[in-house]
Amino acid sequence: MGKLLIVGTVAFDAIETPFGKTDKILGGAATFIGLAASQFNVKSAIISVVGEDFPQEYLDLLSKKGIDLSALQIIKGGKTFFWSGKYRNDLNTRDTLSTELNVLADFVPVVPENFKESDVVMLGNLHPSTQMSVINQMRERPKLIVLDTMNFWMDHAWEELMEVIGHIDVITINDEEARQLSNEYSLVAAAEKIQEMGSKYVVIKTREHGALLFHKSKVFFAPALPLREVFDPTGAGDTFAGGFTGYLAESRNISFQNIKNAVIHGSTLASFCVERFGTERMNDLEKKEVNNRLLQFRELTQFDIELQ
Amino acid sequence: MGKLLIVGTVAFDAIETPFGKTDKILGGAATFIGLAASQFNVKSAIISVVGEDFPQEYLDLLSKKGIDLSALQIIKGGKTFFWSGKYRNDLNTRDTLSTELNVLADFVPVVPENFKESDVVMLGNLHPSTQMSVINQMRERPKLIVLDTMNFWMDHAWEELMEVIGHIDVITINDEEARQLSNEYSLVAAAEKIQEMGSKYVVIKTREHGALLFHKSKVFFAPALPLREVFDPTGAGDTFAGGFTGYLAESRNISFQNIKNAVIHGSTLASFCVERFGTERMNDLEKKEVNNRLLQFRELTQFDIELQ
Repeated sequence: MGKLLIVGTVAFDAIETPFGKTDKILGGAATFIGLAASQFNVKSAIISVVGEDFPQEYLDLLSKKGIDLSALQIIKGGKTFFWSGKYRNDLNTRDTLSTELNVLADFVPVVPENFKESDVVMLGNLHPSTQMSVINQMRERPKLIVLDTMNFWMDHAWEELMEVIGHIDVITINDEEARQLSNEYSLVAAAEKIQEMGSKYVVIKTREHGALLFHKSKVFFAPALPLREVFDPTGAGDTFAGGFTGYLAESRNISFQNIKNAVIHGSTLASFCVERFGTERMNDLEKKEVNNRLLQFRELTQFDIELQ
Repeated sequence: MGKLLIVGTVAFDAIETPFGKTDKILGGAATFIGLAASQFNVKSAIISVVGEDFPQEYLDLLSKKGIDLSALQIIKGGKTFFWSGKYRNDLNTRDTLSTELNVLADFVPVVPENFKESDVVMLGNLHPSTQMSVINQMRERPKLIVLDTMNFWMDHAWEELMEVIGHIDVITINDEEARQLSNEYSLVAAAEKIQEMGSKYVVIKTREHGALLFHKSKVFFAPALPLREVFDPTGAGDTFAGGFTGYLAESRNISFQNIKNAVIHGSTLASFCVERFGTERMNDLEKKEVNNRLLQFRELTQFDIELQ
């Protein structure tokens, strides 16, 4: 069975959208990635850190999904990383109300022995040095290393970010971040520059529009499923990454054709994530629902033109 | 051979983009629509008006494309409609520098006898009453009536616009206009409301992202081809409409499946239009180039997932 190693935050989120607000609920990049990847037939592990305040029920939820939590550090007397934010009406912009690093401030990831030979490594958004440390601990070069990052690290840890981009296969970022990273407005030009930095494949998420996949002269676009209501976008990017890497870890086929499919699987799972607050929609998501939505994606995009 | 009747402006444009600027060049909605539709095997006519200052060479260009100009009124002593605008750096927003209606102010469209039984009628952006007058002159209900409009008419001629929307089959508008027309933020909800107003199909152009086609519970998305450089977006929407209606007038098949194909053809032609100023790229566009780009669209969007 394919092995997927995930590093990223496991956290508390408090979210406000135009449709409502939550108290502290389960969040974090690794959480969303792990839940999405659990839709596939893979052996996955999360490397992360939480405090003593992290509820057993959340740990049980992740364990029941088959996620190995032996590298999830629980710090005695520590408090779990906490983020709270409020989305504006268009749901595209959000204001961070509070970020409490807590136990994340001193986090040193330790790759478990039995995951040092993983097929796919998913580096969730964290300090690039932390991400690099995970790569350095691998016994063998994984078939695929996927990086998620954000503008904050471009502003504050440029050199460390460049180093990690030099060691990965795929980067997933949004359009604004791709423009900042490359200093190019055109996403085609941006993707070229980012490939020159070292990432063989570039996935640019154009928010509610979809995701573009670039590799050399090839380009593929997966639209986001047009939804009547987007309830809470939190975790959509991480869910995309989880579907993307989960599918590739299961199929262990790194052809462009199959990476296209991974983008479709990522988009499909992300379309569920935004329907409820936090991880709510992902917790009990069934294979049948996912398959139905994959059929909708096919309807949404497939056409048959005869060329004359 | 399918007949396509086009009503819209034939104009002078003066355009400034971050890449350069033009003096008065050939422009106007009907011009772009006609040039795009001329890629198909159809008999098309333009109903419009120009002044005596309109150069013979522009008339010759349109005639050579096989467009019937017998309903293009040339007003003695009159001046042609003129628009000038400047695009901002993102090319998504533009400021109108000047609009001189000139002969357009008194324009009364007259449908030529031999086009009163057209297969497809394309109502380019004009006052809704002018668009309605064309519908009223048809001897038979066309197979398909397509409407383009803009926010200006929503602000200034709401009732007339509602009347014309009650008589059409397809509306093509951009995302902002769809939101204004429907008072709904979600494009899915917007498309439903607009269908209730009377348009059986709703095409929402999401600018550089692509175009969505809605009909009852069905939805289709054609991404815009990601381009390294967008030079001048002027006429892209009209070129889309010309490709859309030209294809449908040629094939005379109004199934959802075939309307999907029309959206792809519209997007393909629009991707050429933006590569040069004004109509420059469309003037000599060859079938071979179009077919190559249709193949690129297929690469961009097609995938093959086996459901388990």
